Amino acid sequence: MQTQTGILTVVSGFSGSGKGTIMNRLMEKYPQNYALSISATTRSPRPGEMDAREYFFCTKERFEEMIAKEELLEYACYVENYYGTPSAYVQEQLQAGKDVILEIEMQGALKIKRKYPDSVLLFVTPPSFEELKRRLTNRGTESPEAVRARLKRAGEECEGVEHYDYLIINDELEACVSQVHSILQNEHTRLSRREAFINQMKQSFMEYAKGE
Amino acid sequence: MQTQTGILTVVSGFSGSGKGTIMNRLMEKYPQNYALSISATTRSPRPGEMDAREYFFCTKERFEEMIAKEELLEYACYVENYYGTPSAYVQEQLQAGKDVILEIEMQGALKIKRKYPDSVLLFVTPPSFEELKRRLTNRGTESPEAVRARLKRAGEECEGVEHYDYLIINDELEACVSQVHSILQNEHTRLSRREAFINQMKQSFMEYAKGE
Repeated sequence: MQTQTGILTVVSGFSGSGKGTIMNRLMEKYPQNYALSISATTRSPRPGEMDAREYFFCTKERFEEMIAKEELLEYACYVENYYGTPSAYVQEQLQAGKDVILEIEMQGALKIKRKYPDSVLLFVTPPSFEELKRRLTNRGTESPEAVRARLKRAGEECEGVEHYDYLIINDELEACVSQVHSILQNEHTRLSRREAFINQMKQSFMEYAKGE
Repeated sequence: MQTQTGILTVVSGFSGSGKGTIMNRLMEKYPQNYALSISATTRSPRPGEMDAREYFFCTKERFEEMIAKEELLEYACYVENYYGTPSAYVQEQLQAGKDVILEIEMQGALKIKRKYPDSVLLFVTPPSFEELKRRLTNRGTESPEAVRARLKRAGEECEGVEHYDYLIINDELEACVSQVHSILQNEHTRLSRREAFINQMKQSFMEYAKGE
C-alpha cells in the first residue's frame, strides 16, 4: 500500500513580494492539500493581530523552554525577538498527507533545508527592482527611511537566494497561485518521494522471476 | 536582458509504458516548446521506419567516426549495434530556447545526467506490474518468450530508476502529457535556471545602495 506524506514547503520573499497574499489564496483554493504553519514569537502583537492566527505569541521564558525541549523545527532571533516554528503541528499535518507551508525568513529557511534536504524552498519576488520599490513606496504606510531600510535589507537577502529551489515571479496573483500549486503537485512525482511505488514494482518483478 | 536556454530532458521507461505516445502527443500540442532529438544507430531499419524520422541510420564506420570526433552527447552498444545522440541538433535547439527531449535507454540517460547535472530525467511506468504485463501480452505481436524477456529486462531496469528525477505513472494519455508539460514548465522556474534574473536584481540593489 502506498502511503504518501506531505512536503515540507518553505516560502520566503522580499517584503512587497506579495507572498502572504499568494499563500492565503492557495489555502483558500486548495484547503485539502495544504496546511499553513503558524510561527511562535516573543514580540508583541501588532494592532489587528490575533494569537494563534498570525503568530503564537508567547513569553521569552516559554520560548526558551520550547528551544530546550526541542519543540521547534527552527528558530531565529531578529531585533531581540525570537521567531520559531513549532514542530508538533507541522509533523502531524505532514503525516496526514498535507503539504505544510512555512512562511519564514531566509535564515530559518536555510536551516530547514540543511535539516530536511527534501523540503522545497520557494522564493517570491516582484518582476523587477523598480516594481519592488514602487510597491514599497505606494504602501504609503512607511516613511522614506523605512522604505530605504527595507530595500537595503532586501538587497542583503538576495545573497542566499541561490539556495532556494524555485523562483516565483509575482506578476499576477492567480497565475502565481497556480504556479505554486503546480510546482508542489509535481514535487510529489519525484522519484525520491515514490519509494513505496518503486519498491512494490521491484517486489513484483522479483516474484515474477521466481515463479518463472 | 534575460536569455533562457532550453532544458535537456531525458525520457526512459519500460517498454509498454507508452512513453513514445506521450512524447509524440507532447510535440503535437506544444511544437513551440519542445524538440525531439533523433538518435543515430547502426542497426538496420525495420519495416515502416524512415531515415531521419525514427533514427539516423548509418554505418558502423560513420558511427565510429562520430565517436572519434566527439559529435555524440552519449552513445551505447546494445546487441552489437550502436545507438547514440548527435550533439549538433540538441545544442542548436537548446540555444533556441527549446526543451530538447531525448528518448533513450537508462544506460545513456545516466551518462547524460553525470555529464549535464541540470538535465531532467523522466521515467515512465504503467500504474502497476500487472498492467505492464497485460499491455505487453495484449500487443499480440510478440511471442510469450519475448514478453517474458521484456519483463525480465524491465525488472533489471528498475535498478537504476532512483537516479531519475520524476516518475510519470501512465494511466491516461492526456493527463500524462499535461503532467510532463507542467513539470518542464516548472523546471524553468528553478533558481539554478534563473541566474540572469537574479544577477540583474543584485545589480539593481547595488546601484541603489551606491546612489543613496
